[in-house]
Amino acid sequence: MAKHSAHEGSVGIVAPQRFCAPGEFALQCGESLDGFELVFETYGQLNAARSNAVLICHALSGNHHAAGYHAEDDAKPGWWDACIGPGKAVDTNRFFVVSPNNLGGCHGSTGPATVNPATGAVFGPAFPTVTVKDWVRSQALLADHLGIERFAVVVGGSLGGMQAMQWAIDLPERIGAAVLIAAAAKLSAQNIAFNEIARQAITSDPQYRDGHYRSANANPDMGLGLARMIGHVTYLSDFGMGQKFGRELKSGDLSAARDVEFQVESYLRHQGKSFSQRFDANTYLLMTRALDFFDPAGEWDGDLVAALEQARCDFLVLSFSTDWRFSAARSKEIVDALIAAGRNVVSAVIESAHGHDSFLLPLPRYTSVFKAFMDRLAAGAEADAEAGSGDAP
Amino acid sequence: MAKHSAHEGSVGIVAPQRFCAPGEFALQCGESLDGFELVFETYGQLNAARSNAVLICHALSGNHHAAGYHAEDDAKPGWWDACIGPGKAVDTNRFFVVSPNNLGGCHGSTGPATVNPATGAVFGPAFPTVTVKDWVRSQALLADHLGIERFAVVVGGSLGGMQAMQWAIDLPERIGAAVLIAAAAKLSAQNIAFNEIARQAITSDPQYRDGHYRSANANPDMGLGLARMIGHVTYLSDFGMGQKFGRELKSGDLSAARDVEFQVESYLRHQGKSFSQRFDANTYLLMTRALDFFDPAGEWDGDLVAALEQARCDFLVLSFSTDWRFSAARSKEIVDALIAAGRNVVSAVIESAHGHDSFLLPLPRYTSVFKAFMDRLAAGAEADAEAGSGDAP
Repeated sequence: MAKHSAHEGSVGIVAPQRFCAPGEFALQCGESLDGFELVFETYGQLNAARSNAVLICHALSGNHHAAGYHAEDDAKPGWWDACIGPGKAVDTNRFFVVSPNNLGGCHGSTGPATVNPATGAVFGPAFPTVTVKDWVRSQALLADHLGIERFAVVVGGSLGGMQAMQWAIDLPERIGAAVLIAAAAKLSAQNIAFNEIARQAITSDPQYRDGHYRSANANPDMGLGLARMIGHVTYLSDFGMGQKFGRELKSGDLSAARDVEFQVESYLRHQGKSFSQRFDANTYLLMTRALDFFDPAGEWDGDLVAALEQARCDFLVLSFSTDWRFSAARSKEIVDALIAAGRNVVSAVIESAHGHDSFLLPLPRYTSVFKAFMDRLAAGAEADAEAGSGDAP
Repeated sequence: MAKHSAHEGSVGIVAPQRFCAPGEFALQCGESLDGFELVFETYGQLNAARSNAVLICHALSGNHHAAGYHAEDDAKPGWWDACIGPGKAVDTNRFFVVSPNNLGGCHGSTGPATVNPATGAVFGPAFPTVTVKDWVRSQALLADHLGIERFAVVVGGSLGGMQAMQWAIDLPERIGAAVLIAAAAKLSAQNIAFNEIARQAITSDPQYRDGHYRSANANPDMGLGLARMIGHVTYLSDFGMGQKFGRELKSGDLSAARDVEFQVESYLRHQGKSFSQRFDANTYLLMTRALDFFDPAGEWDGDLVAALEQARCDFLVLSFSTDWRFSAARSKEIVDALIAAGRNVVSAVIESAHGHDSFLLPLPRYTSVFKAFMDRLAAGAEADAEAGSGDAP
């Protein structure tokens, strides 16, 4: 984790690690995996009391590379470098940060692109359904492996926030706090509809080949690109897109209705194309299903308060004013249920023009509220360490 | 137009008519058509003074069949039967209603599926770009043909409202009033983005065959279905979809994450499939382009007030509280510009759970405000007729 001069303010050069969980891993769907691997990164140092660990849960298209750089000449840092690093909201000078790629992912963890040991062939579409609950259990095994009995805090945005919520409910003794950013207690019909259209786009692409595109040396580029374009538009706000693109033309003459191409059109096509080159279609289907199925209240007859009464930790719940995919109203449902469940909860609606994607951006009020909550946890973790080790400061 | 007993409250059985416009018709894009035909329907009777004509402009996927039934056993009436008929908002006992299928359409008017007289082959993707301004001019030729010098009112929802606005600007002497429902003065970047994704879905379907699907006896069912699904979700509100579908399952077991199919998923697939069987892909592309290009202020250096100062007529501007595709804020922009342009304008935001599609529904306050405005126009048209003909009531 040496600081890299060209990457001031970041955790510097980082390298992924691997965790291999041998043995049968039973999934919620009833199927099981004969062992699995998770690729993950860590930033910062685990203290002697092991009280300063943070778990980062990624969203739909995320991965384990949340902060820092893999190489000197990397153009971009990890996906949440705005919030993870020395002195940042998730302060790597104080916290030991663990960031895995989820089970079923396509960046190195066991997933649809992995060879099934039972058959010797790639899982492909036969990879079993995984749920947020399955992820929590797999992440807990990673924690065991790292000697982390209890995370000081589990943190996530969007689908990541849902994992943090499930952690608080399923493993209340192993989590000191949960940070839920731009999340929801369950998806709405509209959310599910957008996910279903994305899935239809992928599976109706002839190059999807019923999920066996890899063995055919094919890829459903068009379908995956469309899925990304649909998602991307819903992650931005109408206002934010207006500020960024307006009705600016890339080419053509609007008044003559000739050869018109709007800037937003070429931007979207670029987004779709680059995504289809770096993300696996079967993983995208799996991740959207995990989103759709998430419903922690379901185990308590639909009573979210009863579900959250299982939790013991403190909560930070953040949302963004122009996020219409997981609106502030959805976060308020969580906050209301947490209060009814008697939990400590800090919440804020952050003004932002950038819709759902706001959670990835270095917005001053967002990072300030986030950092204040995290710094308090860091101080607690440090106090625990001192009390445990008996060291004076 | 005999009243059909099984269709109480409707205009009864109606039959489409055809209008053939011979000669060159120059389009805004610089190309021209060697004559064109419009299919249209009429409801009610044109009075002797020809003062009671109403033009109905349809939206993206609409057609000329706005009211009544084509046959005794039709399951459904025309698309706007909720608002057009005896005693309804557009009262066919008082008005003579003209409802054409737009140029470039796929329900009988000259369009991409028409044989190009110059080549003897179907136009297909070679059909020229048409704009809202082109539609206004073609509709004016239809009015000439019907002996209508001036419409008492031009009415439309969504893209239809944009046509009504363009009528008021381009042909101020030929229009007594304009009704703009759930419209906007121009599309936002987000609107254009959704249209572009729909176009990408169509053109990336291998069965689209660069637009020559008809000559190949093929059809881009998947792409057109996806386009419709995307559109459909954006025409509904999150709240309305929640009321209609919630997270109800069609099949499977959500708690076990097995074989789960949500009701909203099968509903969407049905919508996509049925649309792809009744709508032409090239027309869908053309219509979405007309939407994207609409920008009447563009001719006045982006000054909407200056554009609307060309108008002479009165306006009714209606929007719906949960419409996020063309929100109430977009209607307010029009209203503000109309007031600044010194025009008479009545406006209302109708509370509705049903998003953009609200304009098609028989919502009491909506139809009541709409009918009050129309009834005043009908009274004016009748007064004109009496003054003109000298007849006493």
